[in-house]
Amino acid sequence: MLLLHRAVVLRLQQACRLKSIPSRIYIQACSTNDSFRPQYPSLTFSADNSSTRGWKVMGTLLGVGAVLAYQDHRCRAAQESTRIYTKEEVSSHTSPETGIWVTLGSEVFDVTEFVDLHPGGPSKLMLAAGGPLEPFWALYAVHNQSHVLELLAQYKIGELNPEDKVAPTVETSDPYADDPIRHPALKVNSQRPFNAEPPPELLTENYITPNPIFFTRNHLPVPNLDPDTYRLHIVGAPGGQSLSLSLDDLHNFPKYEITVTLQCAGNRRSEMTQVKEVKGLEWRTGAISTARWAGARLCDVLAQAGHQLCETEAHVCFEGLDSDPTGTAYGASIPLSRAMDPEAEVLLAYEMNGQPLPRDHGFPVRVVVPGVVGARHVKWLGRVSVQPEESYSHWQRRDYKGFSPSVDWDTVDFDSAPSIQELPVQSAITEPRDGETVESGEVTIKGYAWSGGGRAVIRVDVSLDGGLTWQVAKLDEEEQRPRKAWAWRLWQLQAPVPAGQKELNIVCKAVDDGYNVQPDTVAPIWNLRGVLSNAWHRVHVFVAP
Amino acid sequence: MLLLHRAVVLRLQQACRLKSIPSRIYIQACSTNDSFRPQYPSLTFSADNSSTRGWKVMGTLLGVGAVLAYQDHRCRAAQESTRIYTKEEVSSHTSPETGIWVTLGSEVFDVTEFVDLHPGGPSKLMLAAGGPLEPFWALYAVHNQSHVLELLAQYKIGELNPEDKVAPTVETSDPYADDPIRHPALKVNSQRPFNAEPPPELLTENYITPNPIFFTRNHLPVPNLDPDTYRLHIVGAPGGQSLSLSLDDLHNFPKYEITVTLQCAGNRRSEMTQVKEVKGLEWRTGAISTARWAGARLCDVLAQAGHQLCETEAHVCFEGLDSDPTGTAYGASIPLSRAMDPEAEVLLAYEMNGQPLPRDHGFPVRVVVPGVVGARHVKWLGRVSVQPEESYSHWQRRDYKGFSPSVDWDTVDFDSAPSIQELPVQSAITEPRDGETVESGEVTIKGYAWSGGGRAVIRVDVSLDGGLTWQVAKLDEEEQRPRKAWAWRLWQLQAPVPAGQKELNIVCKAVDDGYNVQPDTVAPIWNLRGVLSNAWHRVHVFVAP
Repeated sequence: MLLLHRAVVLRLQQACRLKSIPSRIYIQACSTNDSFRPQYPSLTFSADNSSTRGWKVMGTLLGVGAVLAYQDHRCRAAQESTRIYTKEEVSSHTSPETGIWVTLGSEVFDVTEFVDLHPGGPSKLMLAAGGPLEPFWALYAVHNQSHVLELLAQYKIGELNPEDKVAPTVETSDPYADDPIRHPALKVNSQRPFNAEPPPELLTENYITPNPIFFTRNHLPVPNLDPDTYRLHIVGAPGGQSLSLSLDDLHNFPKYEITVTLQCAGNRRSEMTQVKEVKGLEWRTGAISTARWAGARLCDVLAQAGHQLCETEAHVCFEGLDSDPTGTAYGASIPLSRAMDPEAEVLLAYEMNGQPLPRDHGFPVRVVVPGVVGARHVKWLGRVSVQPEESYSHWQRRDYKGFSPSVDWDTVDFDSAPSIQELPVQSAITEPRDGETVESGEVTIKGYAWSGGGRAVIRVDVSLDGGLTWQVAKLDEEEQRPRKAWAWRLWQLQAPVPAGQKELNIVCKAVDDGYNVQPDTVAPIWNLRGVLSNAWHRVHVFVAP
Repeated sequence: MLLLHRAVVLRLQQACRLKSIPSRIYIQACSTNDSFRPQYPSLTFSADNSSTRGWKVMGTLLGVGAVLAYQDHRCRAAQESTRIYTKEEVSSHTSPETGIWVTLGSEVFDVTEFVDLHPGGPSKLMLAAGGPLEPFWALYAVHNQSHVLELLAQYKIGELNPEDKVAPTVETSDPYADDPIRHPALKVNSQRPFNAEPPPELLTENYITPNPIFFTRNHLPVPNLDPDTYRLHIVGAPGGQSLSLSLDDLHNFPKYEITVTLQCAGNRRSEMTQVKEVKGLEWRTGAISTARWAGARLCDVLAQAGHQLCETEAHVCFEGLDSDPTGTAYGASIPLSRAMDPEAEVLLAYEMNGQPLPRDHGFPVRVVVPGVVGARHVKWLGRVSVQPEESYSHWQRRDYKGFSPSVDWDTVDFDSAPSIQELPVQSAITEPRDGETVESGEVTIKGYAWSGGGRAVIRVDVSLDGGLTWQVAKLDEEEQRPRKAWAWRLWQLQAPVPAGQKELNIVCKAVDDGYNVQPDTVAPIWNLRGVLSNAWHRVHVFVAP
C-alpha cells in the first residue's frame, strides 16, 4: 500500500518537473487559491505585500525549500483531490479501525498506514488523530522540512469543508515564547525546540566550555521553574519512603563536583546525511561540551529513599518538567546498577561551572550520568523512580538506538536494539576548518577526543594525506582518573606542510584505553536516525601558495 | 649507525641475488665449510645422507626459508669477515661500555646497538651477553626465522677461534621435553614454547570450546606441578597475613563458575603481517576460545589476606611457576580495583569445563580475568601480591601494548602506551574458508563475535559484496548478563547468492553495547607487535558454476 503510494507520488513529481514553471510565479498562482488559509501563526504567509514579516519568519523557521515543496504539493493536490470532508467526519477517524485522519491547513490526510512509521513514534502522531497537525508541529518544528511535507502529501485524501475552516479551537499560543535568550555565537540547528552548538573554533578554545556556548539539545519548550517552590519527587522503595526534596534539601546531601563531557548521540550527524538522508537535526562537530558539574550523588538520594542494588535488572527512570501539550514529560532511564554505583558518580546536579544551572541546561536540577549519552542526562528533573523495565518514554524506546545500515523506516524494529547508554570513542578536528586555506610551512591542527564509559583517550593519530601516514598528536595534560575518564581530551599537532603540497586531506582518529578505535568511513555505520557518527573526522584544506 | 648497517646489508643482499645460484647447490657448498658446526640439537643439520631426520625436524621447526637465509648470510659473512676472537675475548664483552658480544655457531656478533631494540626486551638478550645464543634460542624458538637471522648477520664482527669451538658448556637439554601431548587438530604456530589454535571450522562447532582444542598460548615450557605439594602464595596486606594455600585450601573458598572467552592480543595477527611485517606469532582467527571456568574468587582470597580497595591506584601482580633458564617467571598484573570488584568476577580457577585444568592451561591454578586480554590470565599461578605499580614483567611493560602505525622499532617508547587490559570488539568468519568454492543458490556464513570489558555483542553485520551492502546475522541465544557478557556470541547468516555471481567478498563486523564498532581496514591499526587486529574480517570465495 505504502509502496503504491510512493510510486504514484514519484510519477507525479516527475510530471511536475517537466513543467519547468519558475517557482516564484508558481507560488503566486497557488497562493491565490482559496483552499489555502493559514491555520497557525508559525505557518502564516500569503502572497500580498503585507507578508514581508511573515516571509522573514518563515525563512528562518522553515527554509524556503520547505515552503516551495509545500506549495508544489498543494497545487498538485488541488488538481487531483476534490473530495470534501466536514470537520466532524475528520474527527471520527482516530483509530486503525476507522482510519486515522489529520488536517494541515485545509487539507485532509489519511495517515493510517503511516502511523507505525512515524519517526517520532506512533503515540506522538496519534495525539493529532482526528484533528489539525499545527499545534503539534508548532512544538516539533523538525516537521517544517520539505521531505516531511512531501511525505504527508502522499496521504492526502481531500479538502476540509470550507464552512469548517474556522480558527482552530486548540491553544496555539507559542509554547516557546518563554525560552531564554541565547548567546549569538551558537549555531542554531532548530529554534523550536532550541538546539544549537558552539562553532568548532570556540569549542576547543577552553577545556571547560563556558556555559553560554555549551551545546544545547532541548526536546520541548524550556520550563520556567521557581527555585523556591521546586520539588524533586523520589519514589521510595517498598518499605522505604518517598521523598519530596526542595533545592535546599538537595544541598544538604554531600556535594560532589566532577568534570564531565556531554555528547549528543547525534553529534556529527551532518556527515551521515552526506551518505544518505537521515531523520534528525543537522549537528556538525559541536554537539559535545565539557563542564564542572556539582550536586548530590544519585546513589545517596536513592539510598535515603530506601533503594539498594538488587540481583534482578532494574532501571532508574527520570522525568523532566518539560512537557508537550498533552502533558507528556521528557523521560529516560539508566540501569539501577549504574545509578547505585558510587564509582559511576551519577549526579543530581544543581551547579554548572560554579553557577546555578542555566535554564537551557536544566535549572534547577538535572541528571549528569558520566560516560553516557546526553539523552539520559534529564534536565528540569521532576521525578525519579525505580522500575523493573526501562523508561517507556519515546526517547528511551523509540529513539537513540543504533541499527545496521541495511535497516530503513520500513523495516526498523526498535525493540531489536538496546537503548544507547555508553557512547563509542569519538574525535574531531576543530581547526583548521574544512575548505580553509592554511599557510605553507607549518600547520597547526586542533581537536577533541572522548570515549564513553569512563574510558580514557590514550592516543590521537592525525594524517595529512587522507589516512596513508599518521602522526601522533599531543594530548592535553588534564588529569584522567582510571575508569573515570569522564571528560574529553583536547589535542593538537604542529606538522610541517610537505613542500609543494597544494591541498591537505587532514584526518584524525582516537584510541581509548579499551583500545577501541573509530571506524574508517561513515557509510558502514550509517543508520536511519543518524546517531553514533564516529568515523574518522576529515577536513580538506588548501595550502597558500 | 643502525641505518648504515642496514644499507650495507641491503647492498650485499642485492649482490647475492644477482648470482642466481640454485639454492640447493649453494647450501651444499656452504655446509662443507668448516666454519659451520652444529652447536645445539634443534639447529642440527648437515648435507650428508644421514641428515634426513635432521632435515625433517628442521622443516617443522624452522621452515626451509630460515635455513636458506642463515646459510646465505653465513656464506657471505665468511667472505667478508675474517677477524678471529677467542672465547675469552667474547666473554669480556657484556656491557654497553665494553660492547655486548654474542656467538651463534662459530660466528661472533657485536649487538651493542641492537640490545635496546630487542623485541623481547633488552634484559632477555643481555642473558646471553658474552656467550652463545643457542641455549636461549632453544627456549624462544621464535628466533628461528629468516628475518631474525638476517638481522643478526648485520652485527657480525668475526669468527670464533677454531680451538674454542668445543661443545658448549651451558645446559642445552630440551626444556620442552616434558611438555604435554597435544591434540593433532591444533594448528601449531610455535612448538617451543607451544602456541597453537583450533582450525576455524572446529572453533565455532561448539559454544564451549572442548579443552583439547582450546587455543594455547605458552611463553615458556609447561611446568609439571604436583597437586599435592602445590602452594599458592598470597602476599598479605600490611596488618593482614600472607597465605600459603594448598589446592584443598583454595577449594574451601566459595566456588564460582562462569563462562568466559579468552582471546590472545595477537589473534588475527596474520592479517597485519600482510600489510607490513610485524614481530610475533602468525595467529589466524583461532587465538580465541570459550570455556566454563570454576574456582575461588580473587576478591575473596585477597580479602582473607587483609587486602581491601584503596583510594590510590594499585595493582595485583601475578607470577607463574613457568620460568626461563635464569628463573624469571612469567608475570602480569591487573588493577586492584578490578581484582577486588565482586562484579568483575576475577577467578583463581582450578576447573575448565568441569575438569581439572589441563597442563597446557595452567594446572593446577590459573587466573581468569573476564573481559581482559589473555596475557593477564596467568597460568600455573605461584604468587599473588599487591603493588603500587604494574608488574615489572617484560610481558606487562614491554609487550602487549598498542601503538600508532607510524611507530617502528627505532622510535617505539613502551612507556608511552598503557598495557592492554580490556580488548576492543572483535568478530571473524569461520565458515566458509578463504578461497573455498561455495554452492550457488544459498550460502551459510558462520563466525564468532566478542568484546572486552563485559560489553555484550548486540549485532553482527555481514556483507557479500565487500562492504557495500549489509545483512544482519542471527546471534546465538546464549544468556548475556548485563555488564558481564564475558563470553562470545556465535552467529550465522543464510543468504541467497546473487544470481550470476562468480565470487563473493564476504565481510563481517560486530557492534557491542557501547556501540563500539570494528575499523574497516587493517593498515590504520597496524602496529609493530601486530596486536589488537580487529578490522572487518574478510573472506573471498568462489561460487560453483
